Amino acid sequence: MSSAQRPHRVLILGGGFAGVMTAQALERRLGKRRDVEIWLVSRDNFMLFTPLLPEVCSGVLEPRHVVMPLRGMLHHQSTWCITADVEAIDTQGHVVTVMGGDGDPHRLQYDTLVLALGGITHTFGIPGLEEHAVGMKTLADAFGLRNRVIEMLERAELEDDPRIRQADLTFVVGGAGLSGVETAGELEDFVRRVRRHYYPKIGEGDIHTYLVELKNEVLAELPPEMGAFARQRLERRGFEVRLGTPIREVREAEVVIGEGEVIPTRTVVWTGGVRPAPMVARSGVEVDHAGRVKTRPTMETSRSTAFAIGDCAVIPNVEDPDGRPFAPTAQNAVREAKRLAANIVARIDGRPLSPYRYRTIGTLASIGHHTGVGVVFGIRVRGWIAWFMWRGYYWSRVPGINRKVRVGLDWVLTALFGTDPVQLKVEDASSALGSTGRRRAPVRDRDTSD
Amino acid sequence: MSSAQRPHRVLILGGGFAGVMTAQALERRLGKRRDVEIWLVSRDNFMLFTPLLPEVCSGVLEPRHVVMPLRGMLHHQSTWCITADVEAIDTQGHVVTVMGGDGDPHRLQYDTLVLALGGITHTFGIPGLEEHAVGMKTLADAFGLRNRVIEMLERAELEDDPRIRQADLTFVVGGAGLSGVETAGELEDFVRRVRRHYYPKIGEGDIHTYLVELKNEVLAELPPEMGAFARQRLERRGFEVRLGTPIREVREAEVVIGEGEVIPTRTVVWTGGVRPAPMVARSGVEVDHAGRVKTRPTMETSRSTAFAIGDCAVIPNVEDPDGRPFAPTAQNAVREAKRLAANIVARIDGRPLSPYRYRTIGTLASIGHHTGVGVVFGIRVRGWIAWFMWRGYYWSRVPGINRKVRVGLDWVLTALFGTDPVQLKVEDASSALGSTGRRRAPVRDRDTSD
Repeated sequence: MSSAQRPHRVLILGGGFAGVMTAQALERRLGKRRDVEIWLVSRDNFMLFTPLLPEVCSGVLEPRHVVMPLRGMLHHQSTWCITADVEAIDTQGHVVTVMGGDGDPHRLQYDTLVLALGGITHTFGIPGLEEHAVGMKTLADAFGLRNRVIEMLERAELEDDPRIRQADLTFVVGGAGLSGVETAGELEDFVRRVRRHYYPKIGEGDIHTYLVELKNEVLAELPPEMGAFARQRLERRGFEVRLGTPIREVREAEVVIGEGEVIPTRTVVWTGGVRPAPMVARSGVEVDHAGRVKTRPTMETSRSTAFAIGDCAVIPNVEDPDGRPFAPTAQNAVREAKRLAANIVARIDGRPLSPYRYRTIGTLASIGHHTGVGVVFGIRVRGWIAWFMWRGYYWSRVPGINRKVRVGLDWVLTALFGTDPVQLKVEDASSALGSTGRRRAPVRDRDTSD
Repeated sequence: MSSAQRPHRVLILGGGFAGVMTAQALERRLGKRRDVEIWLVSRDNFMLFTPLLPEVCSGVLEPRHVVMPLRGMLHHQSTWCITADVEAIDTQGHVVTVMGGDGDPHRLQYDTLVLALGGITHTFGIPGLEEHAVGMKTLADAFGLRNRVIEMLERAELEDDPRIRQADLTFVVGGAGLSGVETAGELEDFVRRVRRHYYPKIGEGDIHTYLVELKNEVLAELPPEMGAFARQRLERRGFEVRLGTPIREVREAEVVIGEGEVIPTRTVVWTGGVRPAPMVARSGVEVDHAGRVKTRPTMETSRSTAFAIGDCAVIPNVEDPDGRPFAPTAQNAVREAKRLAANIVARIDGRPLSPYRYRTIGTLASIGHHTGVGVVFGIRVRGWIAWFMWRGYYWSRVPGINRKVRVGLDWVLTALFGTDPVQLKVEDASSALGSTGRRRAPVRDRDTSD
């Protein structure tokens, strides 16, 4: 489709690790070439460094320090960053419809498409989960959970009714995988610390925390001993860990789990599922049962002009003896991006493509209280050494010296001064003066189901 | 109303400088006394350090660093912080109705009331101002303006229509008092810096900035030469300064000023007026024509059990030869609070009250580009020395070593690394998983008035 007049346009959909790293790798590969241009469509004008999100929730890190402006990461004159939502993808007509800040739909044509739309939280149709639980995928999620927890402490401080008070002070995390355990560890740390320093009228013993998981193990991503270690540590810190236990229903002030056990709570965090962005399945490329794009080892899709990468793709691992595809991790996304950029340039230049190959360095999880668990180069680590490796690894991955310094200083200052219960409510940021400035309850009170 | 059984309850309405400093001064005066308790009602669970708000807008400072958690500033066991909106004040019945996070109204009885509700933005009924302009009074205002400016740069980068593009890249500040000039200076600094580093496809000359003021001078709070200096500096940096010019009407993509001049713009910042919170006038105490509480020099109102302080009060200056009341500044609010706390304790103990007396140290304004103007101890200062004094003074006023270190480091790091165009959109922070996650346009597009 490209002509001598017009550069070949690579349109990348998605501003997460996969999409942004692909754009960066393409810029490096293209160098001073002017026959290819990159268009990157992202919902936000920044890339979120997701592994550190739980620490934004607890206030250890400033939100702006874990996001990197896209225009600071991509520098070519022929690269365009478009802050917009993807509305529709037509891989047959080579056109993508996006909705930008002006509220009008725009049609973007492309020569090569990269699907890097990642995943969204999957609720599996559990009743009430969408309405009452919070996720842990976006900055808004982290802010939402933080503000809700603080709201609960403030309400509990003034509440006389012991039943309402118990629901206010009970916190339930659904899902005990990497994301769930890291969120649970950080959340518990935060709640107990701010209670001690700022809400001394609430008793330490009044706070209850639960970790609920459908599978029979904690941290299924790691060897069973590591999961057992994490479980033991969380239990020692007061967590009620319920394994093999489904969440049946979430209501406004309680959650039903397992065989009908009712836990009074107004705070349910759901980390139990991720599914690909739904418009991927409607884009005209072949997808699997879960809606993820089926690719070849080269990341080509069933359409020759479209590639897929990251959490919205299933990329076969040619070296895996059991034929399992690559795991949907940030580590893989970053490596896939380099291979994909090379393959896109090879395709444009008419050279053969190469499959993605990679053996994981390892997996590390922070479970709070300066404790971690993980496997690195096949060696199992746990305790503070694993936590230290976890911090060191992610710190080394934070892009740019500016962010590295800021994240490092945040850690030092929080160690020195502790955290605080500031409840930043900027949700009416888009309103003009006409805003009534009225308080909105962070937790919905539309109906009382209990 | 107090009895031997129950402590005397001082209810303070308002979590700004005036209210929080009164509570702090009361805690200090009361020491270990247990016969008086303090209830502080605040819309947010923190105090906003308003003088640094424009630097939050430009991203020089992190939002959390210019707010202090109330529970970190007030420590007595008998002090209660209530995060709620004030709905109604009944000074005859000694009861205040507040709306808390649970969405239910609560009635709070008091023995002594302190009205410290401050001011809200006054639009003087200018058509379209409420709907299309943004203020600069709250954190949400600062976020809203920041995100709108970034949105405009992003739209302009992709816009072909030169008329729309011009409106995107024109920024108008209404009001050239202290707040307006500081906002204008910081805004211009920010726009030009991020354009240079992150939006190089937009030309420097495409950005237009206006400062519109009804009075015939800039910085009416300072001597005329200082205002003239500020004006000259702003004009040198590209500002069109229009004095003696009213804003007639604000529309979605233009503003009408003076005798009908139309400026195409989508960004109007309004700093031209402040009025007291409206429920003050309905509280049953005597107010002036503007709705501010008329007090004696002791800050007593027309009701013996109610005091008023800060921007919602007119406190006569017994030493002023022209009989002018004290100016509504943070400096005065902080000093008034100490006097008021002493007077409240004196009233409880049956001792006579004393009038508030204070001679201002001076006034300083930052106009951006490391330039300031002001008067300190009667001496006029301008240029970088005034800017340095401005920073030093406000830094010394930031409460607590934690915040002082963080604000200081923010300044150092921004000097080293510059600012960035991250557009934090956490406005749906209160939504649960059910949120559609759809992009909301920061600027309303409901109707096109041009």
